[in-house]
Amino acid sequence: MPQTKILLDEADIPTHWYNVVADMPNPPAPVLGPDGKPIGPEALAPIFPMSLIEQEVSAERWIAIPEAVREAYRLYRPSPMFRAHRLEAALGTPARIYYKYEGVSPAGSHKVNTSIPQAYYNKEAGIKRIATETGAGQWGSSMALAGQMFGLEVRVYMVKISYQQKPYRRSMMTTWGAEVFASPSRETQAGRAALDADPDNQGSLGLAISEAVEEAASRPDTNYALGSVLNHVLLHQTVIGLEAKKQFEKVGDYPDMIFAPCGGGSNFGGVAFPFLADKAAGKQVRLVAVEPTSCPTLTRGHYAYDFGDTAKLTPLMKMYTLGHDFMPPGIHAGGLRYHGDSTLVSQLYHEKLLEAVAVPQLATFQAGVLFARTEGIIPAPESNHGIAACIDEALRCKASGEKKTLFFNLSGHGHFDMGAYDRYFAGELEDYAYPEEAINAALERLPKVA
Amino acid sequence: MPQTKILLDEADIPTHWYNVVADMPNPPAPVLGPDGKPIGPEALAPIFPMSLIEQEVSAERWIAIPEAVREAYRLYRPSPMFRAHRLEAALGTPARIYYKYEGVSPAGSHKVNTSIPQAYYNKEAGIKRIATETGAGQWGSSMALAGQMFGLEVRVYMVKISYQQKPYRRSMMTTWGAEVFASPSRETQAGRAALDADPDNQGSLGLAISEAVEEAASRPDTNYALGSVLNHVLLHQTVIGLEAKKQFEKVGDYPDMIFAPCGGGSNFGGVAFPFLADKAAGKQVRLVAVEPTSCPTLTRGHYAYDFGDTAKLTPLMKMYTLGHDFMPPGIHAGGLRYHGDSTLVSQLYHEKLLEAVAVPQLATFQAGVLFARTEGIIPAPESNHGIAACIDEALRCKASGEKKTLFFNLSGHGHFDMGAYDRYFAGELEDYAYPEEAINAALERLPKVA
Repeated sequence: MPQTKILLDEADIPTHWYNVVADMPNPPAPVLGPDGKPIGPEALAPIFPMSLIEQEVSAERWIAIPEAVREAYRLYRPSPMFRAHRLEAALGTPARIYYKYEGVSPAGSHKVNTSIPQAYYNKEAGIKRIATETGAGQWGSSMALAGQMFGLEVRVYMVKISYQQKPYRRSMMTTWGAEVFASPSRETQAGRAALDADPDNQGSLGLAISEAVEEAASRPDTNYALGSVLNHVLLHQTVIGLEAKKQFEKVGDYPDMIFAPCGGGSNFGGVAFPFLADKAAGKQVRLVAVEPTSCPTLTRGHYAYDFGDTAKLTPLMKMYTLGHDFMPPGIHAGGLRYHGDSTLVSQLYHEKLLEAVAVPQLATFQAGVLFARTEGIIPAPESNHGIAACIDEALRCKASGEKKTLFFNLSGHGHFDMGAYDRYFAGELEDYAYPEEAINAALERLPKVA
Repeated sequence: MPQTKILLDEADIPTHWYNVVADMPNPPAPVLGPDGKPIGPEALAPIFPMSLIEQEVSAERWIAIPEAVREAYRLYRPSPMFRAHRLEAALGTPARIYYKYEGVSPAGSHKVNTSIPQAYYNKEAGIKRIATETGAGQWGSSMALAGQMFGLEVRVYMVKISYQQKPYRRSMMTTWGAEVFASPSRETQAGRAALDADPDNQGSLGLAISEAVEEAASRPDTNYALGSVLNHVLLHQTVIGLEAKKQFEKVGDYPDMIFAPCGGGSNFGGVAFPFLADKAAGKQVRLVAVEPTSCPTLTRGHYAYDFGDTAKLTPLMKMYTLGHDFMPPGIHAGGLRYHGDSTLVSQLYHEKLLEAVAVPQLATFQAGVLFARTEGIIPAPESNHGIAACIDEALRCKASGEKKTLFFNLSGHGHFDMGAYDRYFAGELEDYAYPEEAINAALERLPKVA
């Protein structure tokens, strides 16, 4: 039997991140200010270090990874790739299925790939602390770990309902030395205003962003950090795809199709972009972003300028969006409940270099349980989306007899999401296809940009 | 900087388990029946397959690992060894610290190393299902995973208080297809009798064992499985130490001292025994079992014949024991709350080939938090015991200037134990040194064996 795990040496940790902008057919659409005019990088200086702002607007193909970041990556990188022999056998498919496993990071997901360089560059810039927000806790715990590694204080505004319902993600952040506040909190004006209006406010990601940004903007020693959507975040995540290419070389195979969940786009971009470079060079590879039917940004949204947050604090970005005030239902893949998407993913999807598919919630858990029972690892609900789409394709291969090579990124484990599995087994989860009228109404509210 | 991770290829997964009996100065003390006379292997046949019984009594130095077991091990083995650069720097020690990480197994601990072969041999023997017990859930989830891999039904009697307090370990078992019952249950006579006497009975490990053994003994298609203590369990765990020796060879180093937590002995025996073979051949290496001061079996108990369980259902084994009805306090390292110990570990400790040390609960959490903040991984409370003893030695090296090579086995992650960390940070945990009189009283109740 061929290898199960495809491992690389520490020397194989990439020395450079890959910047997909260099290979895009058209330059990225500009970011606009509230007046509809393009804004320059300096507008971001109050909350980000200049090194990250430079990465945000760079068109260089390769950007060197600082040695201290590679050193920190060595705690868990290179991440393993697996050949899913047992899953293949259970499906009876002639397809070869591979997955890369980012759950080996100490925080349990791919998010650490960007929290480490973000902590590093902020430390280099003389910043003392980071304010950030977290919904379900994946990003907050990743930032807490990275802050600890580089000696930065980390203050996390955690959406109150998650703060109460996911106490163990909060415990993780505390263990890594971060301070965690239920948002809305009394730490910021935005939080106090929300609590004064409604002491029982359960919080939202938009409000938590407002609190973290307010703190970062009002203190010179403090910056803000974001876990997805932005160009520099996707850039950092390309270590996933770059390693995967070496791992495929090592076993003499190459993927016909790649699947990854897509919320803000950092997981999908991280694994797909380095293969998109091959595609630009003429290679055949299909790159499939997988989203929930309850928040079908790419498959049902509009490609338009919109705000990144509910409170309209961010600049306007051109992206696939369901409208900045679109409120998806409370599905368990919290990381995929974003109304918009990365501008890079959006533009490349618009130009038909990427594909997208939406899968309903029950099918994702069904796929995750089959995966857990064959491959052993219990995946995060977000990761189940990529698995579900890959299994669908593997079953099509079974019907057609095609021996395709399929690859998905297993972005994290589900150790802090077992309550979602409980609800699935108890029959309490539902599929949720967002009503056409609600999407249309939200899209009506998109800002008008000339 | 030298390597952080020391990885092996799948071809390096051991082909044979190492049986320490072959290198013991004296043969193991016999197991006795209730009449005080030695019992033969056939006494175990109603609940274990003959292949495991043969391993239990074997004196062969090397026992071949079946190919199907090695194949299953490939999901997570070889496990990585790490050089703890960041921990060393934080301590300012000249010692070199290494750890092997067994938390990479899908169930999150070393227990899978034996649940896989136990499932395999039972399947080979035509058994359809396994009944077992679990306290905190580490063993139950490992057995659930292995049962799924080999097509066995698994029924887990989980101590009721854990069933209620650790619902996510239960969810894991369900995800891997096992049936989980709060013990005492209405599934067995032992459970029904306990519930009839007290409907609010919160259960105990002893009672859960009684339920599982009763089910296994009363159904020909069902066997019983145990996660520690027995010789064949420690045998299976030697994959840890055997791999570690190859990993030390790879970096040209060798441990002066090895630390591992010791409850029933499978983690400690698994990592230590293969090095004990070197010691028998004249090599200098100190092997230190680490136990909690609240359950100081090796450091305070007697070396005597005693029952393995509270209910006196098991044969009599010669071991270090605090008395079969010793009830340790509710510390968070549930896996170390066993009144006795493996007979192999006990005899080797009695013969001074092994050492033991007891550490108080607060020091173990302090060590675990320092480890998490430097090396990233949040350890299980049991694992924190080995870390604490290793850190103590590293600090002695700092004082003396000695450049010792220290090694500990990080037996599992703490993702399902975050509530314990919460209590530690909240100042709610206590040190607990068991009162001398209580230990003496329990020892008074040891069975009298001629």
